[in-house]
Amino acid sequence: MPPSADPAASRAKLADVAALADVSVSTVSKVLNGRTGVSEDTRARIEALLQGQRYNRRTPSTPKAVLLEVLCYEIDSPFAGEAVASIERVCADRGIGMVLSSATIDHLPPAGWSASVLQRQPIGVLLVAARLPDADRERLRSRGVPVVLVDPAGTPAVGVPTIGSADWNGGFLATRHLLDLGHRDIAIITGPDDMLASTARLSGYRAALDGAGVTVDPAFVRPGQFHYADGLTEGGALLVGAHRPTAVFASSDLQALGVCEAARRLGLSVPGDLSVVGYDDLKIAQWAGPPLTTIRVPLGEMAEQAAHLALRLRDEPELAFSRIDVATSLVVRESTAPPAT
Amino acid sequence: MPPSADPAASRAKLADVAALADVSVSTVSKVLNGRTGVSEDTRARIEALLQGQRYNRRTPSTPKAVLLEVLCYEIDSPFAGEAVASIERVCADRGIGMVLSSATIDHLPPAGWSASVLQRQPIGVLLVAARLPDADRERLRSRGVPVVLVDPAGTPAVGVPTIGSADWNGGFLATRHLLDLGHRDIAIITGPDDMLASTARLSGYRAALDGAGVTVDPAFVRPGQFHYADGLTEGGALLVGAHRPTAVFASSDLQALGVCEAARRLGLSVPGDLSVVGYDDLKIAQWAGPPLTTIRVPLGEMAEQAAHLALRLRDEPELAFSRIDVATSLVVRESTAPPAT
Repeated sequence: MPPSADPAASRAKLADVAALADVSVSTVSKVLNGRTGVSEDTRARIEALLQGQRYNRRTPSTPKAVLLEVLCYEIDSPFAGEAVASIERVCADRGIGMVLSSATIDHLPPAGWSASVLQRQPIGVLLVAARLPDADRERLRSRGVPVVLVDPAGTPAVGVPTIGSADWNGGFLATRHLLDLGHRDIAIITGPDDMLASTARLSGYRAALDGAGVTVDPAFVRPGQFHYADGLTEGGALLVGAHRPTAVFASSDLQALGVCEAARRLGLSVPGDLSVVGYDDLKIAQWAGPPLTTIRVPLGEMAEQAAHLALRLRDEPELAFSRIDVATSLVVRESTAPPAT
Repeated sequence: MPPSADPAASRAKLADVAALADVSVSTVSKVLNGRTGVSEDTRARIEALLQGQRYNRRTPSTPKAVLLEVLCYEIDSPFAGEAVASIERVCADRGIGMVLSSATIDHLPPAGWSASVLQRQPIGVLLVAARLPDADRERLRSRGVPVVLVDPAGTPAVGVPTIGSADWNGGFLATRHLLDLGHRDIAIITGPDDMLASTARLSGYRAALDGAGVTVDPAFVRPGQFHYADGLTEGGALLVGAHRPTAVFASSDLQALGVCEAARRLGLSVPGDLSVVGYDDLKIAQWAGPPLTTIRVPLGEMAEQAAHLALRLRDEPELAFSRIDVATSLVVRESTAPPAT
């Protein structure tokens, strides 16, 4: 028998089950809705009765679901996976449901997201590489729903607490590592111009080279969008140029994989003929051939901190801050070596 | 001012806003909860008032959130990302919230999951490479909550509609491709013994070799767990053996990347010295050096079909079936070539 949609019918059946099990209606309701305060024996007896009846538990008295909303850019990217998994662990530990939505290609909420979120009444909203139009942010604020941003893009202040990472340091560390190995002809493929994260990484690269007294060849600074295709195209262009670099600092791991592939196609070995440094330390960095030297962005920790904050801000608004950047670090694997002599 | 948690206070404020906006309380409630049936002008006026007051919208009359539960194995794996992104698209199109939970290492729900799900009252539950204990399945069935399984593991019938893929064909196609290129010394690294998917892929491999009159060297059948480390270890062992294969069929893309790395460490080139075929066609297959020839498992489509089914089964139980396997296909990239002569 399909479940009944009639609340009156549901209530009648609730009373039937209570009578059959010789318990109160409220005890049946507790079992039905997964609440505590019922002995294991009683719970089992009621479960058996409920299961025999295919009971429709949608009664008006049901407690609300406790939900955290996550709006995430490119949820099928390796990047998002790490953040989402961390947030899910925080939620699962507290019995909170994580509702995951995908942002648009412009990093914005899709049509209807805001209305759906208001209906679901989450205790907080977490943005992962996504942003909210002012109207949506105000709508959430007016309902007392806190918003926290996990921001790998170096977004300027947006009026919500933001957790990012130290991009300038990352660019500096990557370049410093190549200089320490003896490289002087070091190229960079950047991220998008309009992301502060890209600019900061490029600036770190320039600062490291300046510090070592190395002049940057303008042809060594190549534009990219953090994508594999950038590495393939720009890496290929660098490697067939008259002044060929001995090392490339890519602004993402995917870009670095593209550079490695460009080298492979030209019969050049990494790191024998070319050193490559990535950025992010996604899992795929370990699976590359050779495994990538890269800058670790602790995305899991960033997302975890953001989740804790989003869950507390409603009751403790004094915890809010403007922006925190967590430290990046160098992970040395096998894609870098001293230049060939 | 932090939002009030007192329902009586909330109701008083609701009436205040209605009076200020010169509308009914029910109109304010509609705006508050994102429902339709309010003109744009009125909505804007009420929004402005609500935002001025930092209104706490948790009133008893709020409509319920519509949720689909997804229990997914290894949500930070590239594999899961593709399935989750597909399910999210189906949900977003319908204004349904996708609640994502991570299964344990044993592919089971974590402690407390079942109770949380009962509280959230989803319209359906989707399992991705996960399974439910009988008690949980019965509990959901008794509440009329349909369950659908997206199953890459070839799990035997579990009493819920299951969408898998054609594993035997996948194994056959991969091996047939290598035979067609002229290979005869073809090794396989398998998946876990206790997964029917592994056995079916191995069986497809054997059938293709039998069909070509090639006897399988028992040393060419190596155990694995679908992991990168299997490919590295077993691939390495195969390549230093007395009878070295000219091709390896790996049972997952990650395994295939491990085999490529084992070859690289021994100074062997792919596909010059060794052809490698993967399985799954994850995004990372395209980013490998060289890009991997692999068997495409249309995980996104599988997950999408499963989501549609899970959302319809409650009202249309007649749509239920036991199991459907969707077709796998060969994707030829650059990791396979004729054997060196």
